[in-house]
Amino acid sequence: MLDYKQIIDKLDWKKNNGLIPVIVQGLDGDVLTLGYTDKEALSKTLETGYVHYYSRSKERIRMKGETSGNYQKLKEVYVDCDNDTLLLKVDQTGPACHLGTKSCFRKIEQIDKLPDSNIDYSLDFLNQLKEII
Amino acid sequence: MLDYKQIIDKLDWKKNNGLIPVIVQGLDGDVLTLGYTDKEALSKTLETGYVHYYSRSKERIRMKGETSGNYQKLKEVYVDCDNDTLLLKVDQTGPACHLGTKSCFRKIEQIDKLPDSNIDYSLDFLNQLKEII
Repeated sequence: MLDYKQIIDKLDWKKNNGLIPVIVQGLDGDVLTLGYTDKEALSKTLETGYVHYYSRSKERIRMKGETSGNYQKLKEVYVDCDNDTLLLKVDQTGPACHLGTKSCFRKIEQIDKLPDSNIDYSLDFLNQLKEII
Repeated sequence: MLDYKQIIDKLDWKKNNGLIPVIVQGLDGDVLTLGYTDKEALSKTLETGYVHYYSRSKERIRMKGETSGNYQKLKEVYVDCDNDTLLLKVDQTGPACHLGTKSCFRKIEQIDKLPDSNIDYSLDFLNQLKEII
């Protein structure tokens, strides 16, 4: 097995207490979730080809789908220009969100018909936003 | 002008010292960058319709494109299931990355032809990764 440590150590782990944010995007382009990885979780992700996260709430590494079966098969790996963020493209099995939805992200408002400045957010928008958050 | 404070206060600003990560995605589906926002930057983003960030290195709010002209016109707003991450879909003017590339993310490796486990990373992959990071 190859030693990933030398490579992983070149990423910038200092900005966020040893964690790096990981954007996970499905093959159809939908952004599915934002998770976090530490060195060990990233090593497991690269070695196995399945996405592992460091869970900040549970304070442990978990493979996505280990209990739900909703695995994220790694397809492509991207690093950003600051070496402090990862983007992983995955083949998602089932829903990505623990709430049962395809993505963890829910749309609040489509504003493509609003003017460039002094946007007049309608009361509908406010009500919609309040329901969601 | 509407008061966004009541809404913005419902987002979870505690997990990351008052900052929330913001995934920015172009209209063609490409993920362009990951930035951070505080309450004031998000308020400016929603009010003006142009993406503002809180720059951790410069410790100030800046509108994307304020010096480069590479603005990000806000089109859609998404919130994740934990209310601690935003996804903004934008109409990007020019390159999103300060290095002049369309996206801040660079692909390291395409691994869609590799087996599900015991992935045999080739030496080419290692060399490619070393060049990038």
